[in-house]
Amino acid sequence: MERLGSDLETGPSAPVTLHDVAKAAGVSVATVSYVANGRMNVRLSDATRLRVQRAIDDLGYRPNALAKNLVTGTSRFIGLVADGVATTPFAGQIIHGAQDEAWKHGFVLLVANTESDTQVEREAIDMMLEHQVRGILYSTWYHREISVPPALHSAEMVLVNCYAPGSDARAVVPDEAQGGRSATEQLLRQGHRRIAFINTTWESPARSGRLAGYRDALKAAGVQFDPALVIDAEPNQEGGYGAYEKIQRMDVTAVFCHNDRVAMGLYDAVRVRGLKVPTDLAIVGFDNQEVIAAHLRPPLTTVQLPHYELGATGIRILLGLDAAPPGAITKLACPLVSRESAG
Amino acid sequence: MERLGSDLETGPSAPVTLHDVAKAAGVSVATVSYVANGRMNVRLSDATRLRVQRAIDDLGYRPNALAKNLVTGTSRFIGLVADGVATTPFAGQIIHGAQDEAWKHGFVLLVANTESDTQVEREAIDMMLEHQVRGILYSTWYHREISVPPALHSAEMVLVNCYAPGSDARAVVPDEAQGGRSATEQLLRQGHRRIAFINTTWESPARSGRLAGYRDALKAAGVQFDPALVIDAEPNQEGGYGAYEKIQRMDVTAVFCHNDRVAMGLYDAVRVRGLKVPTDLAIVGFDNQEVIAAHLRPPLTTVQLPHYELGATGIRILLGLDAAPPGAITKLACPLVSRESAG
Repeated sequence: MERLGSDLETGPSAPVTLHDVAKAAGVSVATVSYVANGRMNVRLSDATRLRVQRAIDDLGYRPNALAKNLVTGTSRFIGLVADGVATTPFAGQIIHGAQDEAWKHGFVLLVANTESDTQVEREAIDMMLEHQVRGILYSTWYHREISVPPALHSAEMVLVNCYAPGSDARAVVPDEAQGGRSATEQLLRQGHRRIAFINTTWESPARSGRLAGYRDALKAAGVQFDPALVIDAEPNQEGGYGAYEKIQRMDVTAVFCHNDRVAMGLYDAVRVRGLKVPTDLAIVGFDNQEVIAAHLRPPLTTVQLPHYELGATGIRILLGLDAAPPGAITKLACPLVSRESAG
Repeated sequence: MERLGSDLETGPSAPVTLHDVAKAAGVSVATVSYVANGRMNVRLSDATRLRVQRAIDDLGYRPNALAKNLVTGTSRFIGLVADGVATTPFAGQIIHGAQDEAWKHGFVLLVANTESDTQVEREAIDMMLEHQVRGILYSTWYHREISVPPALHSAEMVLVNCYAPGSDARAVVPDEAQGGRSATEQLLRQGHRRIAFINTTWESPARSGRLAGYRDALKAAGVQFDPALVIDAEPNQEGGYGAYEKIQRMDVTAVFCHNDRVAMGLYDAVRVRGLKVPTDLAIVGFDNQEVIAAHLRPPLTTVQLPHYELGATGIRILLGLDAAPPGAITKLACPLVSRESAG
């Protein structure tokens, strides 16, 4: 399923946000929220209260979520349960995207980092429910299939970077197949026809999706798929380095790597033999990993995992700003980042 | 100032935590908190309430912070303002450490990611104050001097990975000088005497501290400091690669690099000339950056930035579990991680 339109945001019925009111009144979002919630125990001048109230009226701001919260007993919190904030640089972008979007609509993010500890996860969800969160985003650091933790069923929720087949849970994930297709198409455009694919040994949607995209792109270009050109390796530098042994016997001119770390290892293996990227071997990665991709020699052509957008879209689905029926899996595009390694 | 002892944690007066009670009673932390706070509107069986109350009595648990909160009007939240969750893999470790430690004492972390936007920062702090946080950790993604944002003065606070000279703010930072000393000592132990230092062009405590440590180590080993062996470069792969031009004219056998990314670039420059690490040039980095350090060829000897411990210690200082007088700057050790590149 492709990403659904977000015309709610730009159409005539675009919701006025706390930020819009704050900007119009020249005050902070917090101040608007005080006034909108009728909190009289906060020290604000009458002039400020009046100015904010006027901006609220002028812009037609309706503190939907807030008003609703007062009725339903939920708060201005949204929970984000993440299983690996510390183990990956990616999780930061999911948090960043979710927070920016939550903030825009007057919500504060409660972040809990579980490092995959089930007990911690259960307690984090309990805490969030105790704080009457508006809903919970449940995110994983790599794209995978999960079973929804039972406690999550007590909350409105959206799965981010993971999905639960056969459940009602809405999910937002990267479009792995499109990403694999884009990477392979870039190599085909450069004239390559014998293209190896170093896939991962980890069973995952990334493994099957990127392979499907690779095959689709070859097919569309009229290139026969040759299973002998697809090998599995550990998804890190050591895996890429070691894979060169097989690659050099394949008579290929280009390699699509499962991720940037594999590409980094492959660079080393190519260099150690006195060969050059991309003239002797063209290479494309996947992830666009911050500290690696742009800084290899030559800079790596790769495909970007849309972590920021996953977080932001998760919030939009949770708040009903992007439509997603129960059980829907929304797929976000993985854009090609073209640098110098594809030849 | 060195890190202060944490015997409060292990001594006879070690505070009993929510976790201890939860474990003893066989219930979740949330359940203990309900009972400890006398929340009768939560559905719990009398048997459960009794079991929890008995565990509280047996262990002598005093819900210090919680009871105090009820009196002072603060909540079980601790705020964490971070300026770069998305731009660095390091911030995740600060969050992880802070959360683990907060959790241990029955607090929940409210995380706000500001990406250095002053307006967002002010609003984040406002929101946290509005939620009556117990206190706020204010953290930066690289170690630096800051001015305390005025809004922060309304909260109890601890600066993490930054410090404000001349203010009352307590801070916890990495011991850059010790880190630089450890890195240099490792090269000296391997018999190197002519050791270059590629420092950064960015003025920062890391720049001055690591240089001071390098000089200290040389002095202690009876090696004359030669300013010609210290050069500045951009703190990334390109900087390290470019610095080799100067390094090769220096007649050195080893290089201490300002960070792992510089070391990674230097590896490439060495390799491109058909030379080998560490036999032709020994190299030590700094940071122990997850996706890089262990995965270079050969694996990089480096010094670890203690991000997890910075977050955890920040919480301990905030809660009064580690002593730190007003204005104190607590320095945490940067341990050497010995791999294969130091020769």
